[in-house]
Parts: sequence; structure tokens; C-alpha cells
Amino acid sequence: MPARLKIGKLVVIGVGLIGGSFALALKRARAVRQVVGVGRTRRNLAAALRLKVIDEVQHDPARAVQDADLVLLATPVGQMAAVMASIAPHLPPRAVVTDAGSTKRDVIACARRFLGGHFPRFVPAHPVAGTENSGASAAFAELFRNRCVIVTPQRDTTASAVKLVRRAWETCGAQMMRLDAQEHDAIFAAVSHLPHVIAYALVSTLARRRNAGQLFGFSGGGLRDTVRIAGSSPEMWADICLANRDALLAALQEYEDELERVRAAIESGDGAVLKRMFEQARSAREKWMVKKS
Amino acid sequence: MPARLKIGKLVVIGVGLIGGSFALALKRARAVRQVVGVGRTRRNLAAALRLKVIDEVQHDPARAVQDADLVLLATPVGQMAAVMASIAPHLPPRAVVTDAGSTKRDVIACARRFLGGHFPRFVPAHPVAGTENSGASAAFAELFRNRCVIVTPQRDTTASAVKLVRRAWETCGAQMMRLDAQEHDAIFAAVSHLPHVIAYALVSTLARRRNAGQLFGFSGGGLRDTVRIAGSSPEMWADICLANRDALLAALQEYEDELERVRAAIESGDGAVLKRMFEQARSAREKWMVKKS
Repeated sequence: MPARLKIGKLVVIGVGLIGGSFALALKRARAVRQVVGVGRTRRNLAAALRLKVIDEVQHDPARAVQDADLVLLATPVGQMAAVMASIAPHLPPRAVVTDAGSTKRDVIACARRFLGGHFPRFVPAHPVAGTENSGASAAFAELFRNRCVIVTPQRDTTASAVKLVRRAWETCGAQMMRLDAQEHDAIFAAVSHLPHVIAYALVSTLARRRNAGQLFGFSGGGLRDTVRIAGSSPEMWADICLANRDALLAALQEYEDELERVRAAIESGDGAVLKRMFEQARSAREKWMVKKS
Repeated sequence: MPARLKIGKLVVIGVGLIGGSFALALKRARAVRQVVGVGRTRRNLAAALRLKVIDEVQHDPARAVQDADLVLLATPVGQMAAVMASIAPHLPPRAVVTDAGSTKRDVIACARRFLGGHFPRFVPAHPVAGTENSGASAAFAELFRNRCVIVTPQRDTTASAVKLVRRAWETCGAQMMRLDAQEHDAIFAAVSHLPHVIAYALVSTLARRRNAGQLFGFSGGGLRDTVRIAGSSPEMWADICLANRDALLAALQEYEDELERVRAAIESGDGAVLKRMFEQARSAREKWMVKKS
């Protein structure tokens, strides 16, 4: 059995739902000595401090990472480049850097460019967890329990860095999985990024109608569940859509083709085809989603 | 205060989630003497009898409606024409007929054509309630409590018939509302029929991929909620899509236009526009859906 994980100084850049929950889980496990939080919003950092998500606030990322053992980048992916550029010259050689971005190819490209010689100690990771709430006050220590965290290390990523990140996430209760970065992005374009686009677009469609208030007044549990994730952070999701542009556009095209097949069946009044399509969808959901849960 | 509702013989044609729950709620309120269930599937009717959803099984709708006081048509809307044609010659003059269809214009047109002289005692209604489960065994007496039931009576519908139907649904705990049939169909195309099409199409898109099993394995709560209603009855929803064809195609077009706006913003890499779109959707959801529930 390996010795218990003991991280000295953890720096969390972006103390939101993910970054905050990571800090809370490691603190609860007594696996970290000190947590320093970095962020753009004073109010959010103050809340994080008050809720003991972090032990110390530091507004300057460059100063924060001095003496760091582990740095978690948990900002929206659109900010990774700037954050990496600002911390790179100040990282102690031993520090391991990891991220929690929902897209991996773009974050890896950023890291290669902006972390420079520190790149081998950068471990790309994606914790597959979340709620539609955001900010430090939404964080909770159990968020990652039995959830999957995917790492996409590169050929030149050092094994010891991967090991530290793996042990940290396992300490949070997560199950680790390794994937190729491109494969990761294609999968999450389909199962996560596309559904978010769909949910936002459906709400927008209804909101554009003249009688939007009346419309939503008649909505039931079906619509409510379908658009729950339209409550997610607009900034984070705009970033993800652009960061995973190609894979998302491909998934969106497949989905629009599917909608066109449904439209054609409705237009031609072909109830048998429509019923078969819906039956296949119901069976797939049953087979892969209901049994799973 | 009105005397308690007392229905002699209730005939439920289509003893599924809706028809079964209506029967159970009226029985629990002791508002009905006898419930006769009519349906296509012996097994479902046997379950309904065993679960005391109905008191008697009758396979022939024509025989079932003899001596009926209230007849609820709760079949998929595609079967309404055939059912109405078969019961019309056998309805006692006093019998009130109502339906539970999710679309109203087509059901009204059917009733005008097939119920003939009995049309003034037909009350078009739509209970806005449901779950993704179907069949008599999914029925429960509380399904309609605090849910909305919309009636769309016509100029020649008799007031006493509307009153009976209204009181029956109120006895089930529902809140009544009156709408124009065309307005009803446009509203539900947007808030209910479109979301179902979207959920089915999203599951189908993922299921078509070579690595569908792996994909669904990575899905989380977001996808799960977004496609929950893809578990709904394919037959019922194929019928609804065709019955409400024009209004649904219009809503689908608005939605596809919205998706095209999102696609354009992603293609051009316009993060600001994308973020604004998502913000507007989040605000609309917040304003109209979160506050409501």
C-alpha cells in the first residue's frame, strides 16, 4: 500500500465548482498542507476563504506559484494561455501542473507553447463531473466521488508527474482513465458539448417567441430536464465550443442530419418511419444509459 | 359548494399512464361507481384489472360504452378516428366523451367527423402531465395533482358536458384552463413536441456512431437529463408529431435557425457572440423556469 498522499502547497487557479471541490476533497483527506486560491473575482475568492475552500488568497498567479508543489488550472479553457504564460517563469522545477479543462487538444497546445521547458511536468486532465451551478460556493468535497477523471499525458510527460496527479484525483474519490487527447475531444464533443449547445439553443428558441412567458408557463418536467444544463456557465461553455471547434462542428452536423431525417418523415407523414426512429432511440437509451445508472 | 361528483359508469379507452391514473384518482375520491377498461393488449388490461385500476375488461369498445356516463379516450392520437367511429353508434345520448390527447385540432376534426350528432357532448382536453413510463402499471392516482388540464371546447360544445369533465379533472387534483385549440397546438409544439423530437434525435445521433457504447459510457448527468424523455412511447410520439405537423414543423424550423446562429458563431470563432447567446438562454431559463418551480 502506498504511503498517504501529502501535498505541501496546492495552488488552485480558478476557484469555482471544480477547483474548489478539488481543494475541499484534498483538505478533507488531509492530503494537503496549504491551499492558495487565485482568481479574477475578489468576491468569489472572499467566499472561498470564508467557506474554508482555500487558506489564502493571492491575486497574482506569478507570486502564487512560488514554492508550489501542485498547480491546478481550473479556469475556463479560454484563459489557459494567459494563465500559463504568466506562471511559467515562476514555477519551481519540482512543481507539477495539471488542468481541469473539458477539452484537451487545445489545452495541450497551449501548454506546449506557454509552459516551455516545464511542459514535461504538465499533466492534461479532465474530471468528468459538474453541476449546473458555478462559483466557489457551489463547491463540495464529494463532487468527484466515483466520477471519472481522464488524463491524456503526452509522450514527453514525466511518469512521476502523472503519478502525483493520479493520486490526487484518486484521493478525491475519482476513478482514473487514460485516453488519447483527440479521442477524448471527439467523445466529449458528442456526449457533453453538443448537448449543451442543444439545451441553450432550445431555450433561446422559446425565449424568442412573442409569448415566451406563457410558453414557459406551460412547460413541464420534460422541458425542464431537457434544458437543465442551459443553466451552466456561458463563459465556460463559449470557451469549450471554440476550443473543441472541429469535433463539435462535426457532431453538430451529424445531429442536424438526424433532425433532417425526422423532419422528412414528419413532412411526408410517414408514421412508420418516425415510430421506428423513436423506437431505435428509446432502445439505445435503455441499453446504454438506463442500465448503466 | 357543489355536491360531490358521482359518475356512474366510466369507460377508459386506452388504459395507460394517463387513462389509468385518471381512473385511479376518481376511484380514490369515490367519485365513480364502475370503471370499464378497453384496450388492444390483453396483458396490459389484465395488469390494470389486477392493480384495481379498472373493475372490468371489455375488448369491444362498442359494447363497453353502453350505459356509459363518461368516456375517456386515452389512446395515442393516431387511433382516435377508429375508436370514435366504432363507439359513435352505441353511445347513450347522455354520455359525455372526452379525450386526453396532446394535440387538439386534429382530435376535434376527428370528433366532428366520426362522433356525428354526439359532437356537442365531446369535450376536447389535454392533461399536461406524464412521465417517461407507459402502460397501466405506470399509473398512479397523484399524477394530476396540481397539474394543468387544458380544455378547448368548441362553440357547439354543451356547457353541461364541459362542466362534468372539468369537475372530474378537478377531482383528480388538476387545475383547469381553457384555450383556443390552435393556440394550444402552437404552444405544445414548442414546449413539448419539439423537446421530444430533440431528445430522440440526440440519442440517435450518438447511437449511430461506431463507438456508441464507449460514448454513452462517458455520459454524465447532463446528457442523461437532456434525453430522459427519449424514453417516452414511440408510437404515441410519432402520432403526436403527425397530428401536430404544421405547428411542430414551424417550431423545428425556428430551432434549426437558432442552431445555425450558434454554428456560425462557432465557425467564425466569435466567443463574444456565443457567450451572449448562452447568457440570454441562461437568463431566460432562470426567469421563466427556475423561479416557477
